[in-house]
Amino acid sequence: MDAAQIDVPRGLAGVVVADTAISEVNGIEGWYQYRGHSAIELARHATLEEVWHLFLFGELPDAAQAAGFAAELRAPRPVVAEVARSLGSDRPDVLHGVKAAWPLLASRLGMKPVYDLSTDERRSDALVLTAALPSLLTELHGAPAAALPDRGVVANYLHRLTGGLPSAQEERALTAYLIAVVDHGLNASTFAARVIASTGADVASALAGGLGALSGPLHGGAPSRVLDALDRIHDPADIADWIRGELAAGRRLMGFGHAVYRTTDPRSELLKGIAVDLGGDRVELALRFEREAERILAEAKPGRGLHANVEFYASVVLERVGVPREMFTPTFALARSIGWSAHILEQAADPKIIRPAARYVGPPLRRPTAA
Amino acid sequence: MDAAQIDVPRGLAGVVVADTAISEVNGIEGWYQYRGHSAIELARHATLEEVWHLFLFGELPDAAQAAGFAAELRAPRPVVAEVARSLGSDRPDVLHGVKAAWPLLASRLGMKPVYDLSTDERRSDALVLTAALPSLLTELHGAPAAALPDRGVVANYLHRLTGGLPSAQEERALTAYLIAVVDHGLNASTFAARVIASTGADVASALAGGLGALSGPLHGGAPSRVLDALDRIHDPADIADWIRGELAAGRRLMGFGHAVYRTTDPRSELLKGIAVDLGGDRVELALRFEREAERILAEAKPGRGLHANVEFYASVVLERVGVPREMFTPTFALARSIGWSAHILEQAADPKIIRPAARYVGPPLRRPTAA
Repeated sequence: MDAAQIDVPRGLAGVVVADTAISEVNGIEGWYQYRGHSAIELARHATLEEVWHLFLFGELPDAAQAAGFAAELRAPRPVVAEVARSLGSDRPDVLHGVKAAWPLLASRLGMKPVYDLSTDERRSDALVLTAALPSLLTELHGAPAAALPDRGVVANYLHRLTGGLPSAQEERALTAYLIAVVDHGLNASTFAARVIASTGADVASALAGGLGALSGPLHGGAPSRVLDALDRIHDPADIADWIRGELAAGRRLMGFGHAVYRTTDPRSELLKGIAVDLGGDRVELALRFEREAERILAEAKPGRGLHANVEFYASVVLERVGVPREMFTPTFALARSIGWSAHILEQAADPKIIRPAARYVGPPLRRPTAA
Repeated sequence: MDAAQIDVPRGLAGVVVADTAISEVNGIEGWYQYRGHSAIELARHATLEEVWHLFLFGELPDAAQAAGFAAELRAPRPVVAEVARSLGSDRPDVLHGVKAAWPLLASRLGMKPVYDLSTDERRSDALVLTAALPSLLTELHGAPAAALPDRGVVANYLHRLTGGLPSAQEERALTAYLIAVVDHGLNASTFAARVIASTGADVASALAGGLGALSGPLHGGAPSRVLDALDRIHDPADIADWIRGELAAGRRLMGFGHAVYRTTDPRSELLKGIAVDLGGDRVELALRFEREAERILAEAKPGRGLHANVEFYASVVLERVGVPREMFTPTFALARSIGWSAHILEQAADPKIIRPAARYVGPPLRRPTAA
């Protein structure tokens, strides 16, 4: 390459790739916010539909807007059911199925990559595609229960997935989890969605790119690993030995440590409180596991400040409310797709193609010998 | 955000996001190369299969390797035909169809996002997914002709798409186009694929993300716009007036100017030569259009050095060999998927998640008032 090259840290750590009015993470003080609202307060008190509105329209809805928006999200769309069922008969992996369903929906609904689509038009596309996700996920998971017309998106998702009738406490717990993970800075999935949106691509392409990145195990691809660890502990008295064994074998302890927070992760604190309220043996085991892990990690890796991250208590809460383990990442994606949508709209509103540089370190050009 | 923030140019222009041994673009001297080989020389003399091997395995094949690799690329895979036909019955947009087909193939073939997959395993996935593309594209386009078992990938693609029997000159022309556009630095699609691969995601997710970005009109989404311009010129004597009218209306002249090359684009020079060899009225019109456009642009935007870019003569060549206009971007994607594959393998071999930062410019956190 010829133009001046700018060196930055690997993985673009700290490199500002966008101005955003969507969310802010303060890893030193240990808080994060969505458009001026404490994300944790929203997770405690708002509905998912209200936060969906905040992300897509920029503000929390008033009562009339909230009712209208919730009805719009819940409106059955025959095209979604058709696509879900046509894919479902093939029984694809759930995440791969959604990656396929979004472009198929985009095609059926005539969504084209268009440079100068208005934000309203893109928002309408984002709304249809994200609102389709609960149905897509439950259909792809298989044989969903019938919808509960009087309840919101979260209760319906849980009911259709599990067949059970979620209690108010379970609904609140899952709502809190979903709101807490709607957005969190420019992680790889959000950034992938923005890179794709920067070309003028359709919303479905950008969402599917986000989901592709999310599915990677370094991002959101393996939250159930925490439970796999808890499963292996047959007697709580064995926790410390088991953890020491993992560290001695050079394995990372799943659910501990985060790239951003040096304090405790506020999401983890929130979900821990919810887990404690839900109660049960599994929660007791998780609490004890966390105490032992923090103590052993502080000895083994002093100064690193390794605490339970969002993955740890998220896994415990998701299991406790009945989400099957193989649906943990899809459920994370359901929440995060709302965040991606806002980032896609923001990126597309100011289209400047994202086109970085690379440093060539391969063999030099073999100049042709004179013929 | 708290950590030190690093400001860089918008769109990451010039920001080095990766070391690569795949390709190098020299925009000042006006050349580019693939793994030490002049891309233009390869486009003139190599087969697409040889370049495919160069990208996936790091070197050009010897005769025995070439024969084996060509056979592997050509081997019919029932699962590809099944997925293509199941999607084809729905008649999706071709690009949306491929975005859906890749994850469905990944699901059928058991490709999972796995952090520590070996390069050999990922290469095998990339080979299956890219080798599927000619079949997917022709099936999604509709009613492909039967394969020509004695000819290579390019002749087969053209034949199945058009029904005609490509001449050696037409096959060479399309081969040259495809090789010339296999890779070209970290454009948005290649970067999107690398961001997704950086999480340990499966190759299909990364390829589909690349395709999502490519479909955007600021990237590869509208190469047929050049022909739309030529279509509007009914008398060659009107060219100058038409161009002046477009510029006066504030519209960009499609097919002129490039972000990287300040000289002429070497791909454009190559494809212009091929167009001239192919000949015909349309080529004559294009040549005259280019002369007039360069003259008028030099007057209207002095010092900008706006020349015909790859899109201009690529469109002329693709039309001349019989590729239908709606298949221009899919045909570009067929070539570029080979480049994405190499970038995905390179990125995944050194997994460091790409996770940049944003600057928050929205409303400040509303601190809760004391209850």
